[in-house]
Amino acid sequence: MESLKVGIIGCGTVGSGVVKLLTGNKKVISERIGKDIEIAFVADRDVEKVKRLGIPEEKIVDDGFKALNIECDVVVELIGGTTIAKDIVSLAIEKGKHVVTANKALLADYGEELFKKAKKKGVSLKFEASVGGGIPVIKALREGLVGNRIKRIYGIINGTANYILTEMTEKGITFDEALRKAQELGYAEADPTLDVEGYDAAHKIAILSTLSFCRWVKTENVYVRGIKDITPVDIELAREFGYKVKLLAISKLVDEELEVRVHPTMIPEDHILSNVNGVFNACLIEGDFVGDTLYYGKGAGEKPTASAVVSDIVDIAIGNKYFVPECLFKEGDKPKIKAPEEFISSFYLRFTAVDKPGVLAKISKILADYGISIKMALQKSININGGVPVVMTTHPACKSNVQKAIEEIDKLDVILKPTFVCMIEEL
Amino acid sequence: MESLKVGIIGCGTVGSGVVKLLTGNKKVISERIGKDIEIAFVADRDVEKVKRLGIPEEKIVDDGFKALNIECDVVVELIGGTTIAKDIVSLAIEKGKHVVTANKALLADYGEELFKKAKKKGVSLKFEASVGGGIPVIKALREGLVGNRIKRIYGIINGTANYILTEMTEKGITFDEALRKAQELGYAEADPTLDVEGYDAAHKIAILSTLSFCRWVKTENVYVRGIKDITPVDIELAREFGYKVKLLAISKLVDEELEVRVHPTMIPEDHILSNVNGVFNACLIEGDFVGDTLYYGKGAGEKPTASAVVSDIVDIAIGNKYFVPECLFKEGDKPKIKAPEEFISSFYLRFTAVDKPGVLAKISKILADYGISIKMALQKSININGGVPVVMTTHPACKSNVQKAIEEIDKLDVILKPTFVCMIEEL
Repeated sequence: MESLKVGIIGCGTVGSGVVKLLTGNKKVISERIGKDIEIAFVADRDVEKVKRLGIPEEKIVDDGFKALNIECDVVVELIGGTTIAKDIVSLAIEKGKHVVTANKALLADYGEELFKKAKKKGVSLKFEASVGGGIPVIKALREGLVGNRIKRIYGIINGTANYILTEMTEKGITFDEALRKAQELGYAEADPTLDVEGYDAAHKIAILSTLSFCRWVKTENVYVRGIKDITPVDIELAREFGYKVKLLAISKLVDEELEVRVHPTMIPEDHILSNVNGVFNACLIEGDFVGDTLYYGKGAGEKPTASAVVSDIVDIAIGNKYFVPECLFKEGDKPKIKAPEEFISSFYLRFTAVDKPGVLAKISKILADYGISIKMALQKSININGGVPVVMTTHPACKSNVQKAIEEIDKLDVILKPTFVCMIEEL
Repeated sequence: MESLKVGIIGCGTVGSGVVKLLTGNKKVISERIGKDIEIAFVADRDVEKVKRLGIPEEKIVDDGFKALNIECDVVVELIGGTTIAKDIVSLAIEKGKHVVTANKALLADYGEELFKKAKKKGVSLKFEASVGGGIPVIKALREGLVGNRIKRIYGIINGTANYILTEMTEKGITFDEALRKAQELGYAEADPTLDVEGYDAAHKIAILSTLSFCRWVKTENVYVRGIKDITPVDIELAREFGYKVKLLAISKLVDEELEVRVHPTMIPEDHILSNVNGVFNACLIEGDFVGDTLYYGKGAGEKPTASAVVSDIVDIAIGNKYFVPECLFKEGDKPKIKAPEEFISSFYLRFTAVDKPGVLAKISKILADYGISIKMALQKSININGGVPVVMTTHPACKSNVQKAIEEIDKLDVILKPTFVCMIEEL
């Protein structure tokens, strides 16, 4: 039987998963595709760890660069980060190897350079595992929906943040408590910055946007806000308005301009995305012909991510080389990235006010001055930090106007704390 | 620019959608894949209808067989049915054309013959549109999850049945009322048999099973029961037990045997599948590495189905020829199809009994005699057809034992009507 030789560089969580899959399901895969996938080498500084996975000593290398001299058809980069990983990927491409990577940060920041290099060299650069773990969302977008103009993408694509928000919602606990629990369970890293600040989701939505809108979208093009300032109070108040709070990654064409953003978002609680809980991920993609489609599954972890990496390897084995749209390599009219100030959205606003007559009138006056129309208002007779919460949702308004209004409102002497603001998407 | 010539045979709902997509999004597609997709011909008896879609007269043929003499790379069969469609597909393959079809009945009944023919001839036979309309679930299963041993598939894959059950659930109306509404809205055909009796879903789960378990699964291998005997009463009682009623297509390996079935099923109301409402479809696929994944979208209609057909055409254009697992063409150990009597499942049982002491004791005694263990029981003081409902859910039990027990119970003089039985899946 014909075989494809695969070299794996980086044998951490995902790398171990790939080794386990390629060895454990070797027979299943070759029966399906009529080809063997053979591990040519595994490179990792921790040689002992690789040995324990059952890889024979002669196939273990302690250095990724050295490994690139070994004969193989595909190099799988699973080191992570954007320094050594970038050099490894570049060098592998230069040597004419196909490359598979799970590295979203690398592609979001250096995708343009690397994809151009791969195209020039005539090799594949595949990245199914970079978004949504095991969910074949890249394949769905790139191939399954290839006939559609993509209108919008909504993703719950960071499992850590979604786990934290789910715990806060279901148990009424604080962000810090939920984060601690996530860390205990291994769902959050010791330094959770990338996940809770939204940058991991930003990398991923940059990649999905690049595939959808025929322009290179980088992390720096994404408006990002994390979930650290979400409180159980706002989750509960959102519920009273019929919303759930999710860290949503959004990419959509609005008036021919591209809005790419990641932020805590209130979404209708009866929408299917509101039912994506815990470490699960989901991506809603709307195409002009297909309408709304949704892809759901585990967004991280050794085994799901390995499933995605192996699907890329198999794609290469069966000659499916297509990886990013051709138009990315062409000049021409590209959609502009919309500035965050210009976003039009509905908003949830929670003011912390003194418990006196006339407060609502003062707030409403300023909102009206900025052309912001109130949809619903709610004043609660509970005391938070010495004030009462006055909560409003607005009709669609321009983000910069809302910002200016809030700045002015927060200067009122009846307002005790900075106002909490959250965007709403009706989906 | 290179081009791929596509001939379309059958220009009904889906055919019209394909023409609209290939003309309306021509530029988007060629920009993405670097190739033009060109319509070589459209064949339909109703030539005027095709003209109205803007197809020039010289490309319109009034007969599918005649059309096969025209030069093209891909033949798209959208006639439906299993007679002429089968001849067209066979002949196209014999002439060395790649074939794309949306015809689930054809593939469920004659897939083995046609796929073998295509493989021998070295052409593709693609069928993304045959299951789940626009949702790229075939691609996900065949390519995205290719590294996984598939453990189970749960599909809500008939939009008509799902619309009817959703209406019955949300509005408390009867099956007949909901069906009439579905027909008025064009969601159900004048003869709704294929949809409401479960055969359409059976075709689809046969195809998904064939892709997953390396054996040809035909419609005749699927246990099928429709939704006609579902009443608002059972939907309401299910809700009290925490379940929703869905027409579920199920395929799973149990003790190395394959269970393939389509029937009304009670599933936990907080599961994401319970939130798939109206004409939407969803497929839950569990792989040993990826875990649970779910694919959701519109399961029918001109535009979504066209999206799937075009993704197959593009696959052929970019050289992605893989269509069914190689192992299907090999001899060897294949999983046996489990007989329905041997299914192990939890059950919901609604007895219609006289309102007298001792009824519960008599029913429970017979169930116990057959080794059926009751999980929950509920007796309602409402009157249905002159009797009171006694409702039970069971722990997992063998279907044949439940059948025998029910036969015996239904002979009791305290039982007024045939007992309603529904399988439960905890998912």
